[in-house]
Amino acid sequence: MNALNEAAAAALTRLRAERPLIHQITNYVVMNDTANATLHIGASPVMAHAAEEVAEMVQYAGALVLNYGTLSGPWIEAMLLAGRAANRLGVPIVLDPVGAGATRLRTETGHLLLEELNISIVRGNAGEIAALAGAGGKVKGVDSLGTEGDPVEAARRAARAWGGVVAMTGKRDIITDGERAIGVDNGDAWLQTRTGTGCVSTAITGAFAAVEKDYVVAAASALAAYGVAAEAAAAGDPPGPASFHLALFDALYHLTPEDVRRKARFVEL
Amino acid sequence: MNALNEAAAAALTRLRAERPLIHQITNYVVMNDTANATLHIGASPVMAHAAEEVAEMVQYAGALVLNYGTLSGPWIEAMLLAGRAANRLGVPIVLDPVGAGATRLRTETGHLLLEELNISIVRGNAGEIAALAGAGGKVKGVDSLGTEGDPVEAARRAARAWGGVVAMTGKRDIITDGERAIGVDNGDAWLQTRTGTGCVSTAITGAFAAVEKDYVVAAASALAAYGVAAEAAAAGDPPGPASFHLALFDALYHLTPEDVRRKARFVEL
Amino acid sequence: MNALNEAAAAALTRLRAERPLIHQITNYVVMNDTANATLHIGASPVMAHAAEEVAEMVQYAGALVLNYGTLSGPWIEAMLLAGRAANRLGVPIVLDPVGAGATRLRTETGHLLLEELNISIVRGNAGEIAALAGAGGKVKGVDSLGTEGDPVEAARRAARAWGGVVAMTGKRDIITDGERAIGVDNGDAWLQTRTGTGCVSTAITGAFAAVEKDYVVAAASALAAYGVAAEAAAAGDPPGPASFHLALFDALYHLTPEDVRRKARFVEL
Repeated sequence: MNALNEAAAAALTRLRAERPLIHQITNYVVMNDTANATLHIGASPVMAHAAEEVAEMVQYAGALVLNYGTLSGPWIEAMLLAGRAANRLGVPIVLDPVGAGATRLRTETGHLLLEELNISIVRGNAGEIAALAGAGGKVKGVDSLGTEGDPVEAARRAARAWGGVVAMTGKRDIITDGERAIGVDNGDAWLQTRTGTGCVSTAITGAFAAVEKDYVVAAASALAAYGVAAEAAAAGDPPGPASFHLALFDALYHLTPEDVRRKARFVEL
Repeated sequence: MNALNEAAAAALTRLRAERPLIHQITNYVVMNDTANATLHIGASPVMAHAAEEVAEMVQYAGALVLNYGTLSGPWIEAMLLAGRAANRLGVPIVLDPVGAGATRLRTETGHLLLEELNISIVRGNAGEIAALAGAGGKVKGVDSLGTEGDPVEAARRAARAWGGVVAMTGKRDIITDGERAIGVDNGDAWLQTRTGTGCVSTAITGAFAAVEKDYVVAAASALAAYGVAAEAAAAGDPPGPASFHLALFDALYHLTPEDVRRKARFVEL
Repeated sequence: MNALNEAAAAALTRLRAERPLIHQITNYVVMNDTANATLHIGASPVMAHAAEEVAEMVQYAGALVLNYGTLSGPWIEAMLLAGRAANRLGVPIVLDPVGAGATRLRTETGHLLLEELNISIVRGNAGEIAALAGAGGKVKGVDSLGTEGDPVEAARRAARAWGGVVAMTGKRDIITDGERAIGVDNGDAWLQTRTGTGCVSTAITGAFAAVEKDYVVAAASALAAYGVAAEAAAAGDPPGPASFHLALFDALYHLTPEDVRRKARFVEL
């Protein structure tokens, strides 16, 4: 997978050089974390959700991240307005369908956004992706209880149905456009102990999508970079999850393209 | 108090085994903290406040936590919708009346929720509880300035008036159903230095209420567990409040039923 | 600048003694940070944004902080209601025009608040201040890209136009009422690595405005105090930005009037 390692390292180099604006319409729980992670990986976050400004803000953005972890009517409307503007302008959209499958509102909002918008990457856990794709995903609140059958095939089918890239995160992350499928074997079990680590991976995916137009490569690079940073944080043997979280954010800041080139573990599936 | 120590330890064991979903409609300031504390103590948090989904979400929940620290009209409506569904389904409700007594809206919202809903546990500081009960509570913003008279009697009267359990936190936490009253003498002065430590205690109380149907025992166990974790964090002699906060979250994660059994300090009042 | 050093130390002493309530209508991203910073510097934060309560809450406040980092219609309305009540009551208002210049909504909201309210201090970066003042400020999302011409003159002109104090933060902070101008040379480059550090400086400015009615002195004292705390945090050589942030909050808590008296670096401009 040398080509992908080189591509991921090159994407991080561009990200740090270009510092793209990442417009995020995201949930209340994780806003501070996703903003800081966006900064530390090398991009510039802006949170804006007012109907009056989202279409204007997104025109300066390198990517638009939509995350409906604490959704409500006005925020869904803002996502549609921002998303339509992004599509007109060619700004890639990364969607995090938090809790899809847990309630009808969350599943239907995912369907609405996927129908109305051209979404470049959907980043979710196995339960969310499968639930949205109507493939038997199981979700408790915002936690995945897994999916029926082979997750790679579930991700491929979802990608084909939606016409974009699916990034299904788990012990092995699976990234696919419906044909090509890449596994990412980076990360650490500590990530499971904190809220919002999935949302942070989506924000970072948005940052990479701003500088890498092959969205399979962008998503795989982002998840590998995040996983390498998690490994570095875990290597310090943190005494608990809050300490791990702190170390993870320090590690995102210090992550170098060379780290990514050497440590990203990609596998063709 | 050996029986209570055993009960508290057993409740934490069940919590870790069952990992109940705790549906929280809470304030913007503390959402990240309460979500992580819920995870670290062993449960699964979900934040959902849309009128379109709260009744559906709460059916999967082991408890519903209502906290109006940054309230507004639509959120109060969501609390009523979620609360009525919880009552129909037998899901216990834990209320945190943040800032009751500080403004008419906050006091009246407390009265509204207590009238409309069957609330299992009200967790607040002395000023909030007394203000809500019309017993001379004094509140500055969201800080208690104390209450007139004996706090144990104030808590008992409030519990009788509301028909539920009152958990009034302070140097000594007081938990009562109007008859039985238990004091919890765990905790640490560092808790006063950070915002949201009361809200976190409410979230943890929600987690225990999901696995212990004697709500006096549930609230006392939760506050003792939290206090024991705070003592563990303080024992590391943190250099300041942010370091204490980090250590507290690490300690919640590592807290064992055996810690609770040995270190919880209950007193019958 | 001995007189200013003494004044800043005296203001911090009063702040710790009086513990004023600081009413904040601020953005979702930073609420937890600004609440904790307000506590650590010695004041008491309350976040309240409901139209039904803001005018009542502000009457107990020593200062009102308005920050529109994640603005929307109802929040702007709440800022106007709270601000008018603050003006009637003589409670100073500190405005943080986050992202002014980035979208029309943000620029126009700044103009609206400055026209409708008597604002004591506007705390922003150079791009935001210049954009609001119609002086060629450049803003990307919420980041300043600087301003045309001399920033001290830009700040002076803005202060004269608005009839209040301008606190323009950057490598050198510039505080002016249109005539007198003071530079503050405290701080550390680590502050640039985290989101919300500007918002925190605004919250702290609100705390000082509650105890020091010369608002040039209040803002200069606040920014010096914050900068001295940042220097203390940086002196511990934190391994990354998250560690710096933690150390900064610990340092705010431990900051003494004597630290401020000795280490504040003021310069008349």
